[in-house]
Amino acid sequence: METLVKEAVVIPPVNGVAKTMKALVYHGPGNKAWESKPKPGLLKPTDTIVKIFKTTICGTDLHIMKGDVPEVTDGRIIGHEGVGIIEELGTAVSNFKKGDHVLISCITSCGKCEYCKKGMYSHCEDGGWILGHLIDGTQAEYVRIPHADNSLYPIPAGADEEALVMLSDILPTGFECGVLNGQVKPGDTVAIVGSGPIGLAALLTAQFYSPAEIIMIDPDENRLNTAKTFGATQLVNGAKENVIEKVKSLTNGKGVDVAIEAVGIPETFGICTSIIAPGGHIANIGVHGKSVTLHLETLWSQNITITTRLVDTVTTPMLLKTVGAKKLDPNQLITHHFRLDQVMEAYETFGNAAKEKALKVIMTAD
Amino acid sequence: METLVKEAVVIPPVNGVAKTMKALVYHGPGNKAWESKPKPGLLKPTDTIVKIFKTTICGTDLHIMKGDVPEVTDGRIIGHEGVGIIEELGTAVSNFKKGDHVLISCITSCGKCEYCKKGMYSHCEDGGWILGHLIDGTQAEYVRIPHADNSLYPIPAGADEEALVMLSDILPTGFECGVLNGQVKPGDTVAIVGSGPIGLAALLTAQFYSPAEIIMIDPDENRLNTAKTFGATQLVNGAKENVIEKVKSLTNGKGVDVAIEAVGIPETFGICTSIIAPGGHIANIGVHGKSVTLHLETLWSQNITITTRLVDTVTTPMLLKTVGAKKLDPNQLITHHFRLDQVMEAYETFGNAAKEKALKVIMTAD
Repeated sequence: METLVKEAVVIPPVNGVAKTMKALVYHGPGNKAWESKPKPGLLKPTDTIVKIFKTTICGTDLHIMKGDVPEVTDGRIIGHEGVGIIEELGTAVSNFKKGDHVLISCITSCGKCEYCKKGMYSHCEDGGWILGHLIDGTQAEYVRIPHADNSLYPIPAGADEEALVMLSDILPTGFECGVLNGQVKPGDTVAIVGSGPIGLAALLTAQFYSPAEIIMIDPDENRLNTAKTFGATQLVNGAKENVIEKVKSLTNGKGVDVAIEAVGIPETFGICTSIIAPGGHIANIGVHGKSVTLHLETLWSQNITITTRLVDTVTTPMLLKTVGAKKLDPNQLITHHFRLDQVMEAYETFGNAAKEKALKVIMTAD
Repeated sequence: METLVKEAVVIPPVNGVAKTMKALVYHGPGNKAWESKPKPGLLKPTDTIVKIFKTTICGTDLHIMKGDVPEVTDGRIIGHEGVGIIEELGTAVSNFKKGDHVLISCITSCGKCEYCKKGMYSHCEDGGWILGHLIDGTQAEYVRIPHADNSLYPIPAGADEEALVMLSDILPTGFECGVLNGQVKPGDTVAIVGSGPIGLAALLTAQFYSPAEIIMIDPDENRLNTAKTFGATQLVNGAKENVIEKVKSLTNGKGVDVAIEAVGIPETFGICTSIIAPGGHIANIGVHGKSVTLHLETLWSQNITITTRLVDTVTTPMLLKTVGAKKLDPNQLITHHFRLDQVMEAYETFGNAAKEKALKVIMTAD
């Protein structure tokens, strides 16, 4: 046994099938490694094993690496985004066959529980966000996907597979938690607080609904310039000007119809509640670590709506169609490319996003 | 002039029309009087003068009397609810004629501004809640109603006019801010925090939508018993038991689909955010004087919606039909009767509502 473990990386294939693989493994706060792990196998009839073709890194993965997500334990393979090819299927999987190219949703859903029946896959009683969190994830050569019929999507023939990696998490998150919850309508004035990848995903998908103005708010000039090329009509640099006064001046003192929070700190949530017009919608996307002060002493009479949401990925089929129809170009969000075995380097780049001018980084398997 | 003022209460009618009237007048915190005031006249072509038949007192009026609403100034006639008879009309009023019996909405709306066109009458640019607030109100023998075509409703022939006083404010408030904003659906579990008149108005109107359970939460046993007779299926006494634990135990640990806040203090808002199920709606009705702590560090992922609203009274026609069809009995909310000239006594009773077991008090003109 001791020898076997030590030699794990060089175990010869049995009947030609490799029994180990390489993966990005979390080893407690500040520690991670690209190392050998046993290749996953089917555990339930509803599982598939997917060979990863392309994957990416999420801001949440950086939080995990810092130790901010304590339910992620030592030894866990990280990652919840990617596209790949089905290598094995459980006997109960009927939507797919071996060799199918699939998009992996960051949300696993059984399709059968009370929450799934409401379309709230994020709170699936046997799923939700578990990939790279409570079970091993996608920054690996292979991944086990439970409830495959509901948690994978077929990739249309001829599609740009790399672009579709943006549909695993970031685009449905910006769209569902920001744009749909914010109820963006034609003619609306929309403010997006935070011009990182998630804010930009909201910016791209908000344009489906033809708002009159999209005001992008961020302290980083480079990110604001990116937002401009993505369709923002107004830029507000929080490091240089008073955001609340500026937004009020851009809206004849009324405030915005929709404010999308895409950062996750009390200050940015506070900006949203300060710039919202009567009757407006505040859609929170940000992952918050602290409570916020809600000024109900003024807001009680303002007919506002505040929403929170963990992405359900119910709109993945819709987004696939918008990409197919060229209404949405996910490639705009991709700035850097690596091989899968360069994942440690990819984390370096993504972890210094401002300096590296990085949005999303793609890692491609050989 | 001096004589005239001193003798104002006995000025003889000119051409048979009285020029003064009696009204309940605010004279700064803690001071009010039932005294003579000039009878109101038409100021604009869209005005009417209504002779008050029946009026009532709102919890907001008690706040005004304590000095909590600083925009109400010395000399203001209080009150924003009532039914009456049209005595005079401006030349631009077309929906009504002299002698019509009308329901007065607590919200004045021009019907022409951007907010009115969205149905957000509460934020009308030439109206909103102004009666008994920024202009003289209904606790008087006569009241001037601006924008009469939009701010008055015809009383159907044969209707119980006293019951309809509950449609000036309390029932549309409970219904719009609580039930509609909370999106109560058939089969839902609804909690209402606060079993005062507004909470009870929400309780009555929530039943339009056939929720499975309505859990009423209050520290007053008498109010809870009233809620039971109004249709509450579960009662939780906050003075005797841990509200959050009890509600969780009543909902298999999941929490409620809709939580309606009908008090207006941080503690009761906090109860709502602690008992809400994933995907649930928190509908704030309460008038808050302080900010609250919103626990986004847990709520960010719970797919919840929080709404605030100053009543728009857009549902007044709908509520009139439900009363006519006997789907709603507003008389249940009326516990005490006074003559209009007993208004000071009525305030005493309403101001000691718990001791007097008072819900709404009606004052009737001779």
